[in-house]
Amino acid sequence: MTGNSLGERFVVTSFGESHGPKVGVVIDGCPAGLELVAGDIQRELQRRRPSGELFSTERKETDQVEISSGVFNDHTTGAPIHLSVSNLDTRSVDYEERRHTPRPGQADLVARLKYGGNEDYRGGGRFSARITVGFVAAGGVAKKLIRTIGMEVYAHTVEIAGIRARRVPPDEGAKASRDNTLGCADSEAADKMAEAIADGKKHGDTLGGVVEAVATGVPIGLGEPVFDNLDGDLSKAFFSIPSVKGVEVGVGFQSARMRGSEYNDPLTVHDQEVQSLTNNAGGVIGGLSNGQPIVCRIAFRPPSSIAMPQTTVNLQTMKEQPLLIKGRFDVCVVPRAIPIVEAMTAIVLADHSLRARLVGPVLKKR
Amino acid sequence: MTGNSLGERFVVTSFGESHGPKVGVVIDGCPAGLELVAGDIQRELQRRRPSGELFSTERKETDQVEISSGVFNDHTTGAPIHLSVSNLDTRSVDYEERRHTPRPGQADLVARLKYGGNEDYRGGGRFSARITVGFVAAGGVAKKLIRTIGMEVYAHTVEIAGIRARRVPPDEGAKASRDNTLGCADSEAADKMAEAIADGKKHGDTLGGVVEAVATGVPIGLGEPVFDNLDGDLSKAFFSIPSVKGVEVGVGFQSARMRGSEYNDPLTVHDQEVQSLTNNAGGVIGGLSNGQPIVCRIAFRPPSSIAMPQTTVNLQTMKEQPLLIKGRFDVCVVPRAIPIVEAMTAIVLADHSLRARLVGPVLKKR
Amino acid sequence: MTGNSLGERFVVTSFGESHGPKVGVVIDGCPAGLELVAGDIQRELQRRRPSGELFSTERKETDQVEISSGVFNDHTTGAPIHLSVSNLDTRSVDYEERRHTPRPGQADLVARLKYGGNEDYRGGGRFSARITVGFVAAGGVAKKLIRTIGMEVYAHTVEIAGIRARRVPPDEGAKASRDNTLGCADSEAADKMAEAIADGKKHGDTLGGVVEAVATGVPIGLGEPVFDNLDGDLSKAFFSIPSVKGVEVGVGFQSARMRGSEYNDPLTVHDQEVQSLTNNAGGVIGGLSNGQPIVCRIAFRPPSSIAMPQTTVNLQTMKEQPLLIKGRFDVCVVPRAIPIVEAMTAIVLADHSLRARLVGPVLKKR
Amino acid sequence: MTGNSLGERFVVTSFGESHGPKVGVVIDGCPAGLELVAGDIQRELQRRRPSGELFSTERKETDQVEISSGVFNDHTTGAPIHLSVSNLDTRSVDYEERRHTPRPGQADLVARLKYGGNEDYRGGGRFSARITVGFVAAGGVAKKLIRTIGMEVYAHTVEIAGIRARRVPPDEGAKASRDNTLGCADSEAADKMAEAIADGKKHGDTLGGVVEAVATGVPIGLGEPVFDNLDGDLSKAFFSIPSVKGVEVGVGFQSARMRGSEYNDPLTVHDQEVQSLTNNAGGVIGGLSNGQPIVCRIAFRPPSSIAMPQTTVNLQTMKEQPLLIKGRFDVCVVPRAIPIVEAMTAIVLADHSLRARLVGPVLKKR
Repeated sequence: MTGNSLGERFVVTSFGESHGPKVGVVIDGCPAGLELVAGDIQRELQRRRPSGELFSTERKETDQVEISSGVFNDHTTGAPIHLSVSNLDTRSVDYEERRHTPRPGQADLVARLKYGGNEDYRGGGRFSARITVGFVAAGGVAKKLIRTIGMEVYAHTVEIAGIRARRVPPDEGAKASRDNTLGCADSEAADKMAEAIADGKKHGDTLGGVVEAVATGVPIGLGEPVFDNLDGDLSKAFFSIPSVKGVEVGVGFQSARMRGSEYNDPLTVHDQEVQSLTNNAGGVIGGLSNGQPIVCRIAFRPPSSIAMPQTTVNLQTMKEQPLLIKGRFDVCVVPRAIPIVEAMTAIVLADHSLRARLVGPVLKKR
Repeated sequence: MTGNSLGERFVVTSFGESHGPKVGVVIDGCPAGLELVAGDIQRELQRRRPSGELFSTERKETDQVEISSGVFNDHTTGAPIHLSVSNLDTRSVDYEERRHTPRPGQADLVARLKYGGNEDYRGGGRFSARITVGFVAAGGVAKKLIRTIGMEVYAHTVEIAGIRARRVPPDEGAKASRDNTLGCADSEAADKMAEAIADGKKHGDTLGGVVEAVATGVPIGLGEPVFDNLDGDLSKAFFSIPSVKGVEVGVGFQSARMRGSEYNDPLTVHDQEVQSLTNNAGGVIGGLSNGQPIVCRIAFRPPSSIAMPQTTVNLQTMKEQPLLIKGRFDVCVVPRAIPIVEAMTAIVLADHSLRARLVGPVLKKR
Repeated sequence: MTGNSLGERFVVTSFGESHGPKVGVVIDGCPAGLELVAGDIQRELQRRRPSGELFSTERKETDQVEISSGVFNDHTTGAPIHLSVSNLDTRSVDYEERRHTPRPGQADLVARLKYGGNEDYRGGGRFSARITVGFVAAGGVAKKLIRTIGMEVYAHTVEIAGIRARRVPPDEGAKASRDNTLGCADSEAADKMAEAIADGKKHGDTLGGVVEAVATGVPIGLGEPVFDNLDGDLSKAFFSIPSVKGVEVGVGFQSARMRGSEYNDPLTVHDQEVQSLTNNAGGVIGGLSNGQPIVCRIAFRPPSSIAMPQTTVNLQTMKEQPLLIKGRFDVCVVPRAIPIVEAMTAIVLADHSLRARLVGPVLKKR
Repeated sequence: MTGNSLGERFVVTSFGESHGPKVGVVIDGCPAGLELVAGDIQRELQRRRPSGELFSTERKETDQVEISSGVFNDHTTGAPIHLSVSNLDTRSVDYEERRHTPRPGQADLVARLKYGGNEDYRGGGRFSARITVGFVAAGGVAKKLIRTIGMEVYAHTVEIAGIRARRVPPDEGAKASRDNTLGCADSEAADKMAEAIADGKKHGDTLGGVVEAVATGVPIGLGEPVFDNLDGDLSKAFFSIPSVKGVEVGVGFQSARMRGSEYNDPLTVHDQEVQSLTNNAGGVIGGLSNGQPIVCRIAFRPPSSIAMPQTTVNLQTMKEQPLLIKGRFDVCVVPRAIPIVEAMTAIVLADHSLRARLVGPVLKKR
């Protein structure tokens, strides 16, 4: 394959560019008989949109999903599911000018060199976060699919601008994090994060942060050795979200500072089943799910587009020149990344559930 | 594919189990005309073996590579390259006993549940680090391949047991890190790490650490949007190494605490080319290489097999029972992980070089 | 992958159902810088539509293609190309009734059993020839791509109802076959075929035939041993066209009756290049193109939907009952299959041209 | 992938060259718990070897299979299965000479041009029928796997040198065809074929023929629309066998001469199940198995290596020169192709059984 498809059995093929007619996905491999209506997707897309002026000045679009194939009588047919959203609010910035003055930190320059100047450079084109509309739409289907075997997925903000949230148990985070617009289960930390964002906005600067993905109800044995590990596939999926610079599973980088006697999750018996008392492994051992909640953390760098003066190089004159970016800004993408992180988590779990044959080719006969 | 192959154009298919007859790989997609002799592979395998009793009591094997296909007259033919190593030192531990008492932190239990008890449980079977012999062998080929277009790869120890090495510039790390058995470019830190390892060994405990992978001479534009990003594929490849719990690119998790104005690497002109003055991005922007050195850090948890008493569950009686693991131990896998990390880095870069068509189907006519 | 994508480097993902909102494709892997406008696709789609009442009563649709991504300023961007056509003329037959009385020779029954009754059964759903609209659209792009390296593709009718056309040289067939609505280069045979079709129509019966695909200007060495052979991939692609029951390359089945001394194409020197004097091999040796024109013949069975009374089984009562199919009929699909056969040929050649790295990642810098 | 792997869920990766150290396969995706011993493979390999001097003077090798991974305690483990055979009888012909005088009809010339002269040209290298040793070995595993769900596969000779065997019902062909060395169920025809072969041998010429593959006990619904059809995948697999020039399913090319009213297999009820009275479709409708026996015919051209004088081009002088090939000859490959055709059939059916999730990830718990 050539880069725009993800997965082996629940295959998401992405298409679209920021300012082209449509963005969307084709999902191949979804079993027949899954109940699915546009509202299931729409609800997820809604969560991706900014809920206030706090951290974003993103374009305002209704992002109405259109289902063009694969669903019949409100159930999946087993054929490819085609989901798309039209790009409506494509404001006319002077893109011609920007074309020759790549923004630092953005893909402008590498895209131009890779595609020989043929790339759709308007609004970041194929490299725009706009593409994640399709990811979230696919995630809506994946969530419904994995729910049929008892899995739930959520993500929440655990750090912004260096302010870390208190840890919450996996089964409490979902509810608690939905209480504030920052998607943070620790309301005190959320207040401080909001202040930091307001401060960043005032200075025209941007902020990074960390999102945690959690999956509960995960069956044992998802993941394929030795390469298509569950953690490896999750990691790859997370890195496809713009601005991600790090992924860790369980205690992650902290494990590098632990001793084996601390790190090993002791085994015990609970309800006639073997379980681990702790979850330092984050639900993945040997690349396979071990029945514990899956816990990953994803680091987001600050958005590259800042309202402060920067220096760039004019590709026509090959001389440095000042750059002042105008238009929309995200001060911090972390809160809006939450449904995207959830989508990628659900997509990978759906794929591996199918690979492990835990989900049948037909969910419901009709 | 089904989990034991990695890559799209330089495809590494792994086979073998810890105590089976052989471990190895088949490499499909390597261009014809690459000079290759067994010594190229053997040299890499040698680096994977323990250089002393300091951090490991791994089995002693000569690990002689056998090339069974794809090489003719010391050059690759364009046909699949088959590399294998026989498993010789497979000491007879009482594996039958261990079979019912899974080791905490190891894949024993999940493997048994996933494969219904059919898995080769001797020495970790398919989940053993022994499998990485094949990775390193494939890495030997990949390194030679990417060198034809000017890329070099190395890895070094940047942290063990919480002791961090001083940072070194990308072009100095390779040489400096080869001076000590820990593969650490900071000799002072290396001494402290050695002490920590000695201490861990004394207590029968194990230690984690962090390895940094660096690639220099990387052309611009490696990586495919939106899913097969260079960073995503590197991350996935690293997670296939046993014990990895986190991967970060460039400043990684630290970027989550930075402001955009700090993080953005400013663009400038150098030798008629646009370059960035700093490398917070770690050589990857928008999932594509940007010409800067690629820098990734990989977190290794401490090895699960400790010489201290632990608790497990006997799967026959479903009762807890004490566990004392005997046999070989790695106090810390970090130094021996270096050639493995290099191999995975080189494999992914080889694959993407082929995908970007920077390497021809025929390297040299004969 | 899961069945709805074809190719490795020029990957066509198909979506849509006969009576759903849209049918189309996403093409991933097309190089950047290929000139492409909607008219290029539209022209191909036009050829797929019936040119008269002779052999078909297919639905009348304008089949306007919509390009939703991957094209910018009339050139491909390197991002996925999304092509779709809306289904407009979806007449309301009583599909509910037909649902329980599967048509002999059609996929109605197997689809129902495979998808548990969730399949979109209207008009054949995913198994309808309507899906080939997407194939033809993708073929339009593939044809333009392979033309950049000198390849041309055409198909023509060589047999209908047992009437065989005289053979024409590869470089004459394209022109000659476009002279009549049957796409047959032998006008005498075409007249007889037209009579046979008229006769079939009168009786409410249907007819099969054979289409020949020809590619000229093919470079040497397309195809990958040992599995992804050029002939194997062509064959697989042809079998994805509804009604195909056989594929042969070069002299094909006739070669089974030849002696080696007759079959072997003798080698000679022409214009300083080694060439074969004859082309019994059909342009493929050892699974690779040998520089001669590629010649394949594809057998189409007669359409299953006949206007004559048939017997079926009512799936609700599990009793036999008479069946009389109403609605549209194709007496013979062969003439309309021509652009579809061309499309599949071009798609496979495009894919292998990219695999052999004969086409660059960027065709034209802008 | 890059050409040397076949399948999606039962993935066969082939390696080896005719005169290299080993030929073999890695099978990825075989479920755990399948009983498997070397004898299962050895039996199949034995059938691939010539049973007399009648139609072949192939090299004499014992072809002992070695299982290097994936099998433990006589059962598959779920890990990749590595099967290999050493090449022992690699007689030293003067390959250097032949290198510059390509044999007509063979891949010598195209291979040289594709691989820039780096190909292992000894004995046909990667293009030799020797590679099918690996196919047959993999087929031995596939046969055992599909037998667990009631499928049986066989192939038989239906035509040699224009002599056609009488048709036999699918359930009788297997037994009848094993009675003679030609693998032909019609003993009268077999006698005539033997005469034709003796005559061909006398003249130093070679003969083609047709093999029919039959699968019985096939469940309904194998195959994936729209591209990974069962017939398309079978066809592609057959074309990977050297010398194949045509594939047809059911009545195949004959269907092109039939009317719909003749061709359509009427539906009826038998044992409470819907069945078709005839099997013109050859067990595949809409690309899916319909429960009837699968019947394919595969055309083999005569072997290129004849003992008669031919003309070739000397690539160094670029002048024509006479060629007289010495060494081993196959007068007719058809009888020896039978186990290879069976292997490819079984491999594709195994793959699609896994894709349709008719075979579990664990066959037997231990």
